[in-house]
Amino acid sequence: MKAVGFKSSLPIVEENSFIDFETDKPVPVQHQLLVKIRAISVNPVDFKIRQSAAKDSVLEHPKIIGWDAVGTVEAIGENVSLFKVGDEVYYAGDLTKQGSNAEYQVIDERIVGKKPTTLSDEASAVIPLTALTAWEILFDRMRLSLEKDKGKSILIIGGAGGVGSIAIQLAKKLLGLTVIATASRPESIAWCKEMGADVVVNHQDLVNEVRNEGFQFVDFILDFVDTNFYWDSMAELIKPQGHIASITGSALPLLLNKLKTKSVSFSWELMYTRSMFQTEDMIQQHHILNQVADLLDEGVLVGTLKETLHGLSADVLKKAHTQLESGKTIGKLAIKF
Amino acid sequence: MKAVGFKSSLPIVEENSFIDFETDKPVPVQHQLLVKIRAISVNPVDFKIRQSAAKDSVLEHPKIIGWDAVGTVEAIGENVSLFKVGDEVYYAGDLTKQGSNAEYQVIDERIVGKKPTTLSDEASAVIPLTALTAWEILFDRMRLSLEKDKGKSILIIGGAGGVGSIAIQLAKKLLGLTVIATASRPESIAWCKEMGADVVVNHQDLVNEVRNEGFQFVDFILDFVDTNFYWDSMAELIKPQGHIASITGSALPLLLNKLKTKSVSFSWELMYTRSMFQTEDMIQQHHILNQVADLLDEGVLVGTLKETLHGLSADVLKKAHTQLESGKTIGKLAIKF
Repeated sequence: MKAVGFKSSLPIVEENSFIDFETDKPVPVQHQLLVKIRAISVNPVDFKIRQSAAKDSVLEHPKIIGWDAVGTVEAIGENVSLFKVGDEVYYAGDLTKQGSNAEYQVIDERIVGKKPTTLSDEASAVIPLTALTAWEILFDRMRLSLEKDKGKSILIIGGAGGVGSIAIQLAKKLLGLTVIATASRPESIAWCKEMGADVVVNHQDLVNEVRNEGFQFVDFILDFVDTNFYWDSMAELIKPQGHIASITGSALPLLLNKLKTKSVSFSWELMYTRSMFQTEDMIQQHHILNQVADLLDEGVLVGTLKETLHGLSADVLKKAHTQLESGKTIGKLAIKF
Repeated sequence: MKAVGFKSSLPIVEENSFIDFETDKPVPVQHQLLVKIRAISVNPVDFKIRQSAAKDSVLEHPKIIGWDAVGTVEAIGENVSLFKVGDEVYYAGDLTKQGSNAEYQVIDERIVGKKPTTLSDEASAVIPLTALTAWEILFDRMRLSLEKDKGKSILIIGGAGGVGSIAIQLAKKLLGLTVIATASRPESIAWCKEMGADVVVNHQDLVNEVRNEGFQFVDFILDFVDTNFYWDSMAELIKPQGHIASITGSALPLLLNKLKTKSVSFSWELMYTRSMFQTEDMIQQHHILNQVADLLDEGVLVGTLKETLHGLSADVLKKAHTQLESGKTIGKLAIKF
């Protein structure tokens, strides 16, 4: 099969930052589906892995990355029970396995959902990683519920990015929260409002920006940009008994004690935790993706696709990574094969 | 009225570490109750405040500390609606107000509960601070529920202390968790088992101790001893998607990033947050104390009183603090006036 990968971690402008190559079509075993891929998406994790996975060595075989795909089930492993050949599926995948930058991929059925029926391949392909991340934060890590939390406030730092775009919608439409999102350019501000944000503030001078909008404190904060950079602002803005969550990791130690007097909680979210540790509740990702597909088909949630590139090739992936690395991507970028 | 307090932060062995004095009986206003106190308890926060509140200066008036009391409502403020004169009450109080080491105290009705009817004054007096702390951790910070969490595992570091003693019971009896508590002496091990712990392990070599009992990971960890000291062990032992909570604060920065790959959550709990920030849901402490009183009266929870001293005096408070500072107190210590 055709695939795109890399043998060395190179700057994206280098000729071999991505290479086209041929490799064997994988064979599904046990709970795996073999999926013929029709569209994929790219996420910041893609370029982080590309920049670091082969930094000090040259790999013998090219590494295939990519975590987001839509396609058709072409074969199934012996223990598969959730899907059959011919099913249209979408998924974000598993960090420890081959990625979706290829014609075919095998994938554990427990982290796969049915593709939304009303969305195009490319619009569906951009959903899984971001929707799983935002859903897991709000419902699994923070354990929020409409019943308990309706009417409370949430600040979403990085509202116009991929995870931000879907987090705004889940917070607003499923939890009834008042959503304050950060964005700084006219087009990203407009996008956040389109996604459902009640208020959009500039991330510069964040504390004053939020307070000028009438929020002394906010009940919840999601950080999709930089935990270290925003730590002091978040500690200042979070309401007593509030909850902060982040997906970014922290390069430097954090003064967690700043959250003590307010009895604040903090959650990390990594969408790969379930598949990486093969947790007992791994199948939750199957259920989440199905629920998200239903919510998209019912029009409760709207798609977050902003731009589509065409073709599975090193050149197209270089374009996609270049754009993503700029840090200015609004919503999501898809690649249709 | 008679009261005990201090003007300087002195070692407990010093003559003036506590002093007896007379002061005006306070007058209740607004939501306050005037309570005639019959029994109190002491908690580690008491000696921490005594050791630090007047470290670099001599106070003009003695500071009255103490957060746990049982007594009778003798007068009420104009907005009181939850209690009437003559009611028997118990409460932990407010860090920013006069404490319970006195004959009388005014206290906001929203943080007061009805005294358990089946427990003695001294057995009731030791409950509020520890029960509020443990309850808020499990139900408000971590948002655990019998429905979602029954059968999961919890490690309680410092099981035989005041908060540990009630946390073991709440985790076991209200949430159906499997409780692993730490304790190291024969009498503290026996006490943890009496409180309901399924397994008791030594805090030394904690990771191996827990694993030797058959738990590779635990779903939840409560730290009542030292967040910095146990950080690495907790990061190792916590299950992917697990939740850690602590009441101790951290003197040094913590490598929060150690919890990232596992998508772990961390909560601080400070029982004073609600009263200190006058949160909208401050009345929850009233509801929690009433529920705990019912659970004690129904025999679902058992008392945690281990020892009683007698009389309101500087000498008795010195004895109580000396014992608490040893770090070896099992269960709780009361003082009956």
